[in-house]
Amino acid sequence: MTNKVKAFGEVMMRLHVPGNKKLVQTRALDMSFSGTGVNVLTALGRYGNQTSLITTLPDNNIGEASLSYLQSLGIGTQDIRRDGDHIGMFFLEDGFDLRPSVVTYTNRKISAFHQSVTSDYEMDRILLDTDMIHFCGIGLAVSENSRDTILSLAKKAKERGVLVVFDCNYRQKLWKSNIHRAKNDYQQMLQLSDVCFMTEKDAMHILGYATNEIERKSQIKHLIPKVAKEYGIQSIAGTIRQRLQDNKHEIEGFLYTNAKFYFSKRYEFRIFDRIGGGDGFASGIMHGLRQQYSKKDTIQFAMAAGILAHTTYGDSPISSDKEVWALVNNHDPDIER
Amino acid sequence: MTNKVKAFGEVMMRLHVPGNKKLVQTRALDMSFSGTGVNVLTALGRYGNQTSLITTLPDNNIGEASLSYLQSLGIGTQDIRRDGDHIGMFFLEDGFDLRPSVVTYTNRKISAFHQSVTSDYEMDRILLDTDMIHFCGIGLAVSENSRDTILSLAKKAKERGVLVVFDCNYRQKLWKSNIHRAKNDYQQMLQLSDVCFMTEKDAMHILGYATNEIERKSQIKHLIPKVAKEYGIQSIAGTIRQRLQDNKHEIEGFLYTNAKFYFSKRYEFRIFDRIGGGDGFASGIMHGLRQQYSKKDTIQFAMAAGILAHTTYGDSPISSDKEVWALVNNHDPDIER
Amino acid sequence: MTNKVKAFGEVMMRLHVPGNKKLVQTRALDMSFSGTGVNVLTALGRYGNQTSLITTLPDNNIGEASLSYLQSLGIGTQDIRRDGDHIGMFFLEDGFDLRPSVVTYTNRKISAFHQSVTSDYEMDRILLDTDMIHFCGIGLAVSENSRDTILSLAKKAKERGVLVVFDCNYRQKLWKSNIHRAKNDYQQMLQLSDVCFMTEKDAMHILGYATNEIERKSQIKHLIPKVAKEYGIQSIAGTIRQRLQDNKHEIEGFLYTNAKFYFSKRYEFRIFDRIGGGDGFASGIMHGLRQQYSKKDTIQFAMAAGILAHTTYGDSPISSDKEVWALVNNHDPDIER
Amino acid sequence: MTNKVKAFGEVMMRLHVPGNKKLVQTRALDMSFSGTGVNVLTALGRYGNQTSLITTLPDNNIGEASLSYLQSLGIGTQDIRRDGDHIGMFFLEDGFDLRPSVVTYTNRKISAFHQSVTSDYEMDRILLDTDMIHFCGIGLAVSENSRDTILSLAKKAKERGVLVVFDCNYRQKLWKSNIHRAKNDYQQMLQLSDVCFMTEKDAMHILGYATNEIERKSQIKHLIPKVAKEYGIQSIAGTIRQRLQDNKHEIEGFLYTNAKFYFSKRYEFRIFDRIGGGDGFASGIMHGLRQQYSKKDTIQFAMAAGILAHTTYGDSPISSDKEVWALVNNHDPDIER
Amino acid sequence: MTNKVKAFGEVMMRLHVPGNKKLVQTRALDMSFSGTGVNVLTALGRYGNQTSLITTLPDNNIGEASLSYLQSLGIGTQDIRRDGDHIGMFFLEDGFDLRPSVVTYTNRKISAFHQSVTSDYEMDRILLDTDMIHFCGIGLAVSENSRDTILSLAKKAKERGVLVVFDCNYRQKLWKSNIHRAKNDYQQMLQLSDVCFMTEKDAMHILGYATNEIERKSQIKHLIPKVAKEYGIQSIAGTIRQRLQDNKHEIEGFLYTNAKFYFSKRYEFRIFDRIGGGDGFASGIMHGLRQQYSKKDTIQFAMAAGILAHTTYGDSPISSDKEVWALVNNHDPDIER
Amino acid sequence: MTNKVKAFGEVMMRLHVPGNKKLVQTRALDMSFSGTGVNVLTALGRYGNQTSLITTLPDNNIGEASLSYLQSLGIGTQDIRRDGDHIGMFFLEDGFDLRPSVVTYTNRKISAFHQSVTSDYEMDRILLDTDMIHFCGIGLAVSENSRDTILSLAKKAKERGVLVVFDCNYRQKLWKSNIHRAKNDYQQMLQLSDVCFMTEKDAMHILGYATNEIERKSQIKHLIPKVAKEYGIQSIAGTIRQRLQDNKHEIEGFLYTNAKFYFSKRYEFRIFDRIGGGDGFASGIMHGLRQQYSKKDTIQFAMAAGILAHTTYGDSPISSDKEVWALVNNHDPDIER
Repeated sequence: MTNKVKAFGEVMMRLHVPGNKKLVQTRALDMSFSGTGVNVLTALGRYGNQTSLITTLPDNNIGEASLSYLQSLGIGTQDIRRDGDHIGMFFLEDGFDLRPSVVTYTNRKISAFHQSVTSDYEMDRILLDTDMIHFCGIGLAVSENSRDTILSLAKKAKERGVLVVFDCNYRQKLWKSNIHRAKNDYQQMLQLSDVCFMTEKDAMHILGYATNEIERKSQIKHLIPKVAKEYGIQSIAGTIRQRLQDNKHEIEGFLYTNAKFYFSKRYEFRIFDRIGGGDGFASGIMHGLRQQYSKKDTIQFAMAAGILAHTTYGDSPISSDKEVWALVNNHDPDIER
Repeated sequence: MTNKVKAFGEVMMRLHVPGNKKLVQTRALDMSFSGTGVNVLTALGRYGNQTSLITTLPDNNIGEASLSYLQSLGIGTQDIRRDGDHIGMFFLEDGFDLRPSVVTYTNRKISAFHQSVTSDYEMDRILLDTDMIHFCGIGLAVSENSRDTILSLAKKAKERGVLVVFDCNYRQKLWKSNIHRAKNDYQQMLQLSDVCFMTEKDAMHILGYATNEIERKSQIKHLIPKVAKEYGIQSIAGTIRQRLQDNKHEIEGFLYTNAKFYFSKRYEFRIFDRIGGGDGFASGIMHGLRQQYSKKDTIQFAMAAGILAHTTYGDSPISSDKEVWALVNNHDPDIER
Repeated sequence: MTNKVKAFGEVMMRLHVPGNKKLVQTRALDMSFSGTGVNVLTALGRYGNQTSLITTLPDNNIGEASLSYLQSLGIGTQDIRRDGDHIGMFFLEDGFDLRPSVVTYTNRKISAFHQSVTSDYEMDRILLDTDMIHFCGIGLAVSENSRDTILSLAKKAKERGVLVVFDCNYRQKLWKSNIHRAKNDYQQMLQLSDVCFMTEKDAMHILGYATNEIERKSQIKHLIPKVAKEYGIQSIAGTIRQRLQDNKHEIEGFLYTNAKFYFSKRYEFRIFDRIGGGDGFASGIMHGLRQQYSKKDTIQFAMAAGILAHTTYGDSPISSDKEVWALVNNHDPDIER
Repeated sequence: MTNKVKAFGEVMMRLHVPGNKKLVQTRALDMSFSGTGVNVLTALGRYGNQTSLITTLPDNNIGEASLSYLQSLGIGTQDIRRDGDHIGMFFLEDGFDLRPSVVTYTNRKISAFHQSVTSDYEMDRILLDTDMIHFCGIGLAVSENSRDTILSLAKKAKERGVLVVFDCNYRQKLWKSNIHRAKNDYQQMLQLSDVCFMTEKDAMHILGYATNEIERKSQIKHLIPKVAKEYGIQSIAGTIRQRLQDNKHEIEGFLYTNAKFYFSKRYEFRIFDRIGGGDGFASGIMHGLRQQYSKKDTIQFAMAAGILAHTTYGDSPISSDKEVWALVNNHDPDIER
Repeated sequence: MTNKVKAFGEVMMRLHVPGNKKLVQTRALDMSFSGTGVNVLTALGRYGNQTSLITTLPDNNIGEASLSYLQSLGIGTQDIRRDGDHIGMFFLEDGFDLRPSVVTYTNRKISAFHQSVTSDYEMDRILLDTDMIHFCGIGLAVSENSRDTILSLAKKAKERGVLVVFDCNYRQKLWKSNIHRAKNDYQQMLQLSDVCFMTEKDAMHILGYATNEIERKSQIKHLIPKVAKEYGIQSIAGTIRQRLQDNKHEIEGFLYTNAKFYFSKRYEFRIFDRIGGGDGFASGIMHGLRQQYSKKDTIQFAMAAGILAHTTYGDSPISSDKEVWALVNNHDPDIER
Repeated sequence: MTNKVKAFGEVMMRLHVPGNKKLVQTRALDMSFSGTGVNVLTALGRYGNQTSLITTLPDNNIGEASLSYLQSLGIGTQDIRRDGDHIGMFFLEDGFDLRPSVVTYTNRKISAFHQSVTSDYEMDRILLDTDMIHFCGIGLAVSENSRDTILSLAKKAKERGVLVVFDCNYRQKLWKSNIHRAKNDYQQMLQLSDVCFMTEKDAMHILGYATNEIERKSQIKHLIPKVAKEYGIQSIAGTIRQRLQDNKHEIEGFLYTNAKFYFSKRYEFRIFDRIGGGDGFASGIMHGLRQQYSKKDTIQFAMAAGILAHTTYGDSPISSDKEVWALVNNHDPDIER
């Protein structure tokens, strides 16, 4: 396993309002850069994998800053194009208990990434040293450019035997009225996918599956095997998340593979930084598959990784595998010294 | 309803110790400006009302800074006098769980506001474009100057048919031994008030009512109608608050009007910034009355507004009405994007 | 003179890298909002004028934040439209001595302002309570939408006898190849202008005037009267700026009016925040005209205001007229206490 | 009781990563200085005791900074030596809920303190104005130099009738394989101690006691009297701590003296800054003994002091005795104003 | 010389606007504490002298914070009274080049210090271990209370043979119309003084001396000996300061003693923090006298100390004597490593 | 030129006191990482060269943080060993005008780097893909371990035809009494060097050359050719630096190659961040050589790069080659937009 894990995806500038203030109250912003691909590769890099992000960054000082940030996360940058002037941005205002966090996007469609077209990427060269490649469903929705590139690249990857990983990450708001295109796009991607992240909600709302089950876990047990079978997906994983009071969540991970379900321990925990939590879980599964951990270890590792991602500043999960294993093995932390 | 809501009240400089430190541990302070009137008008402005604060600010750089701050909150400033050199100040040290927050006042009695006298304010001009005017009981206690102006202005407002709103805000420490003057002052104000914020405690401790009821809600049901009747108050509102462990409160709002009680949902939530929570509730009621919301909607809106004020940085509530309604309608927030 | 000074112009988010770092070195940004119109009105408001900005801000949290910021500057906001999702932005990296400051623009053309069209603005209502209106040449260049609105609004203003002020603010980069359109647009604006800010460079590079003079002051004396005459402009003002070593400038202001030149004292000073310096000068001239200062006082006041703007944090000049006069009268400041 | 409480111990530079970030995510550190002796004396000083720290600080700017910091905490510094170039340091990364805090030590063994030898300290002079002296078990482990000085100084103190206080503070990691030396060192110290801080775990793991009891409180009741008797210790105190979810602890203090156990109220609370919590408790006991509080008051005061230390920024407890008593007497704090 | 240097004087809270902003632009303040006495004793402590400040601080959290700050500066605090609720405060806005710094005082007259009366201070006990005592002329002006205490304490000190040091520090604004009382108060203090800080301006404006000399140095040579003789002052020292452009000063110190003048080197330097510069010079003279440096060394040391104070953050000079001597001996610094 | 530029050298943690404060005044530190090799490779990477640092970083969180920092600078990290617990550190206090900056080193000799020995580095593998390798004379002085590794690695590199670059960087303090070893070590290194950075001072003080010339440029012209000849060095470069008042320097670069001298323009500029300025110059020369710029261009580029490094925050030069060329071509910068 000497080749790289790659991801195709958008890099966004995150402008975070510090001190739990609202945007209208602040004169200072914390700048970082993230994105689904960024987050997944950051975690995989921390676990020792060679990584590379396939994206386009602006060819100006903003691009320099984002590139340096990705480098600081340990992400390989040889597949990054530089072009255009803009980057997608979002403002993040942290909520508190009953007050929700708010994300305001700006500047996304004109970003260097969403202006880049399929032919801008040298796919053959990019896939040459690649073992596994990650895509995110958000990219299907935001622009036709990114949708086209995702589908082409996934197809090329599949043909070359590169393991295709797809995170559904379905955001209703982004698809609005054209649910139909969504269904079609997702079906194409699922047919190309070896590993997929989704829940029973995706099966129902995007793909149109139905179930008589009421309890979430039963719905999952009923629907996920059907999806796996219909689309020929090797492994499907996801989390069963329950929001409690006071920013707490109860969460349990599942992995369905070879016609069997594996479940993680069930955790209750408080959230520090919600964004990127799902990417923490996804990268845990990907690492387990690459390392050929046992299925049980894989789902435990992934769930613990996901939880650490929720309790860590920033979108990108930066815990080491040693720290993830420590949480798997010990539910009861005090200071480490 | 094209006229303005106004409030008469003190503006104080809030010097907040960041990072949950104690004053003795810090070399940095966060400066903002607040006050009951400031807070109430901020919220009302965010809900779309035209507002104006009646106060006196120092005629120097400190006054400039406070004025600019009020402007940033969207408060109308045409009724603000500039005079003198001083402003009331308080240092705020945040507590944590069992460690209480501490407020240390300084410089209050010599402030431009408390040095200003009744004749300094052009009452006739001020009341000309006014629909509703808000007063706070703290102003009765701190100086004779502010007490006299409150009583005169309330009387003038009443005469002109401006709706008089009075928040008892009784602080025992400020009245110390002269409870008698307190009772007398409050009685005068209640007789002038159309809308009043108070609880059963105020009825008992200031006004001397008694009840055999033990449970708080029963005490409220017993005493508030008596107060409303005796003083001829149109609407009385307040909250039933229970402090739980770990900075959590359980809270329920009530509104008594036209001889009927209306109660909000009961919420449990954690507090981020305690000061100004009551003003969030009060401005919610005032907005409901101005908008002629149904009574039920009014108390729901006010309680949700109060909770958002407790979970927002700073004394002054800055949530929009859209955000308040979102909390009324949905108990279960995740990120909004 | 009870009416307002207004300005039509773009509001941009300024993301300033603190601590003289480069963007690639920072994780923190200072956020403020500015623009030529914002800057000019801020200064005029500080001198006691009623002001109002005519612009479009996004209808989301970013718009809220910018609106609150404008309010904190004391700018009247009743002519501000709310629409769209985007705001123009620029990143500002401070230079040091031989290392130049760098401004990187992003997101400008899709901004709510540049997407707004002439018919969006209720011109008749806007001009009703207006004495003087300010336009900036940058708006001619960035989008056809803003160019069209500028020309229409200036025409309407001229017709109603509102004093039209135009700051050429010619930025070669923005016009690139279509110099021709530039010349035409500027000529139209100059014909509508009563007061204009420009230098001999503008006369030569935009309007195509020629001179045999070599020294700058002689060129100004030769060309500016020709421009004033040809376009029927009442007053033309500008600065003669010389960059010295170590971030120092030598500067002298001129005002040409009624066929006479008036010059300010010549100052040498170091720059703290370069952006908005010219707007400090312009608003000084405008204030002098409104106050009917003597011509000599007007140019002295304007030049001192401009210098204070260069030595003050942020784009928007916030010195009081008292502070400007203090500099006019005293070249030798120590601590004021 | 006109003499001083002294403590012999290391001063370390604490480099705290702000904002709950990990070290790899930060470009900023908060610097303070602490240590068991520092913490204990800080609290005792806040309660009105004269204190003095016996230690060695580097003879350079780092030493100046640490000295100034100790002075700001109100600690007497006349027994501080200045020598060498280095100070022990630790980086503190705050955890969040299931993610543990991490302490990374560096530079400790070459510190001025651990390079100082017994003969460097003028013991006779130091003990002259001393009533009570505090030692910490960590100093036995980190270097032979500090171990030797502790044992010599404790012996000298005992001979002169100075009350010897010893906090076991056993850290397994520091002793690693040579458990044997640990046992021997601790036994020597216990024989010299009048007051000792320990739990049942120390009795079992260091001293080798055994018990059939299973519940912690029963183990304490069984073992602590044996230790007191065997080593002739006047008073032994400690806490029974239970870690709950979400950074909460349940805690109860005990004091065994004159063959009797005294227990504090049982508290549940959330932790803000874990380090130094035990020192808050220890200094509470020491203060109760010096003030000859009743035993019941002593343990209540100490436990409340310990809890405030856990909820206060920084290692060193800075609550006043008034604040500690307020917590003893009132379990239900709101804002103090 | 085993006794202490003491100073009687006010402690003020300095609220500094960071980042060269104006108060109206900031939401953050840097808090420190200073005062003439504080500054002088800080420097003397850094040079190895035992010091103690005679003052009154409020008996609340503000007092705690100020006390801790003084301790961090190494100032002896045994003569500090705690009483009242208020402390004098000033806001400091840094200027830049032609824009002057601005100091806005508030809350001064009601401060615990200015409310304290002569009989509050146990003068006999205070003077017991005192060699030298420092007074500042500002205290004569601000309140009658402080004036009375200064005169009484200076008289008592003189009687006991304690060396009385008086810094004229004449601030015209503070005396306004009652120049007469100023003259009388200063005359009394000068008669009690052994060492005095003043310039030719003080001789002329306060004491009414006249001279035909025009050049400043000549005026000093003419007037200072007269003052020394008339009031029987042992040593008089001061600086000849010339403000240049761009925040630069040219400065030269003088010391007149035993009928002879000693002058320092002449320095040109840029100012970083203007306040407290004079106190740096004064404490240098005081240290030279205590150490019995040669007169030449004394004035050189004092002038270098004053310059370092001007180039150091904060009011209180914190350079070590080693650093002062380094500047005396070397005009050309690079990095010290 | 597809191979890499490498550097062997120490990485240190830089703890910078913000706001021009002294260490004793701060509670906050800015953390970054630097070193001669780090600085040189950062600049070369910014100019488009592939780089790799040969060093040892601690195998703990401190090592993680330093590694991520190097990655953010764009430095290749495949030759970095992870071992041990410590890293060298320095505290940097910025001076101001006549007050010098102060660097306080700590923890250096026990650092992972200085504990690593020659055999720890896989030299053959490291040199395989290397074109040019950089060494710094400081490493010869600090520990025998680093000296031995430098000499071995330089020898190996020379044998393989890798271009050896050596920066004398002679620091007298580090060598103290054993000047003899210094001379011997430097002579060995010079014999192995192809490119060397030094001045006439190094020739005289380390190597013992003498000259009758008095003016610096003449000394350089006399001595540098002798050194080049004796040690067979291809190119020798350095700067002639003159410290002026107010943190200004006058500087001129020289390059001696093929028996000819090339001089840069002479610049006067003010310094923002002194450390790493020399490395900016050195990397400019190295880039010129790799790019086969003309000799004249090389020295101009290097000198401009050096100046930008002096005016940029942090030790590591981060200007792009475009920015360097802009300075070469234009002495008169304003804002770039």
